[in-house]
Amino acid sequence: MTEQKLRARLYVNAELAGGGPVDLAAGQAHYLRNVLRCSTGDAVALFNGADGEWSGRIATLSRGAASVDLTEQRRPQESCPDLWLCFAPLKKSATDFVVAKATELGVSALQPVTTRHSDTSRVNLDRLRTIAIEAAEQTERLDIPAVLGPVSLTALLSDWPAGRVLLVAAEFGASRPIAEAVADVAGRPAAILVGPEGGFAQSELDGLRDLPFVHPVGLGPRILRADTAALAALSCWQAVAGDWRGRPPGRAD
Amino acid sequence: MTEQKLRARLYVNAELAGGGPVDLAAGQAHYLRNVLRCSTGDAVALFNGADGEWSGRIATLSRGAASVDLTEQRRPQESCPDLWLCFAPLKKSATDFVVAKATELGVSALQPVTTRHSDTSRVNLDRLRTIAIEAAEQTERLDIPAVLGPVSLTALLSDWPAGRVLLVAAEFGASRPIAEAVADVAGRPAAILVGPEGGFAQSELDGLRDLPFVHPVGLGPRILRADTAALAALSCWQAVAGDWRGRPPGRAD
Repeated sequence: MTEQKLRARLYVNAELAGGGPVDLAAGQAHYLRNVLRCSTGDAVALFNGADGEWSGRIATLSRGAASVDLTEQRRPQESCPDLWLCFAPLKKSATDFVVAKATELGVSALQPVTTRHSDTSRVNLDRLRTIAIEAAEQTERLDIPAVLGPVSLTALLSDWPAGRVLLVAAEFGASRPIAEAVADVAGRPAAILVGPEGGFAQSELDGLRDLPFVHPVGLGPRILRADTAALAALSCWQAVAGDWRGRPPGRAD
Repeated sequence: MTEQKLRARLYVNAELAGGGPVDLAAGQAHYLRNVLRCSTGDAVALFNGADGEWSGRIATLSRGAASVDLTEQRRPQESCPDLWLCFAPLKKSATDFVVAKATELGVSALQPVTTRHSDTSRVNLDRLRTIAIEAAEQTERLDIPAVLGPVSLTALLSDWPAGRVLLVAAEFGASRPIAEAVADVAGRPAAILVGPEGGFAQSELDGLRDLPFVHPVGLGPRILRADTAALAALSCWQAVAGDWRGRPPGRAD
């Protein structure tokens, strides 16, 4: 039986187990009804970050409310590799962009970090979480990256978890080309730290330099903007040490 | 002698040889005068894509006109690696974004390609060239990527230059993980081809599949937006086969 074409792929904060109907959020009802012009009976996919991806059909759809009858589990739950992005909040649109693109690139957690030269310390976590969910819906992820509350660089480093390497995209000390540095730490939980547009302060660089879990990495001879550096480093990590050896789900050869 | 802090780094379409003053464009005069609030005597850097980077001082600065007296060559000319990005034009802001970020990531040529499912076939080349110049100014490149006029995918492939490999970010055939595929073709002139948001048509994929210079590459199990795929592929190529083993100019250890 050919599966009916899916009209949407939505994240829900509800158990997905095949029992009763699953209620959607008001915004999702609006999206299905007014943007996609869906009708009851249309096929959608749901995921919740824990129970895999389920197909279902729109059971009820009205202004501000919708429910889905689950059909079957399409994919078992799987998670993105254990890779954090620690980033200094940038101007609003650049931060939004980093969160969306990092979610596409399969980051497992997003950690805003305030630094001496940060462009801003204000972070709207609700907004960033919404952006991460929308990016996950579009990219066929089955999990949503954790969007953590901002911490200072000092606090981040003093509470650093044992065993996790921190790749710092900053030109200091014995920074190594990123492909080599990432290959060396493949298989270990990792995080990438990218500073603000103004760069790290000298005292911050001095503090980072001596920490045993810090690996300075180089991103080549050009000066990259902070958002570009974040995406470039995430891409290299996924390609060399992450899960970019797999194929997208359901793609034919 | 400590060099005076540079107030700006500007691309000029003029010979840089240390003789007479170099005239700037009206927009650059406006930028120096009204945005940066520069005065005569302030230090700037100029480059033209051929003669390296020169330092100089603002000699004249008025509404709509400015000139710079060159001081000395700061860096000899060098060019980015021979890597093209062939991309289907996207919606306007996404195309702008791809051009700016690809320039930061050190692409040597940008080739818009129209495909069956392209989001648009309209490309404002003047606008894209301006964006590439601004990105090159900010990223300390000494060259400007060529921004070529749009061609059809068919024409691109039928006129493909001998010896250049084409890495196609599309999930078809025997696509290999990008890190492996790029390592295999390191040292050869290369291009990356990224399709439109709607993907390539089946007939386009069939046509690509059999070409000897085409190397399908995989970017992992998640579905990336077209702009994300372009930047991820460029980053991986630079890290594995490009010039990301070097350091930014003038950065202290």
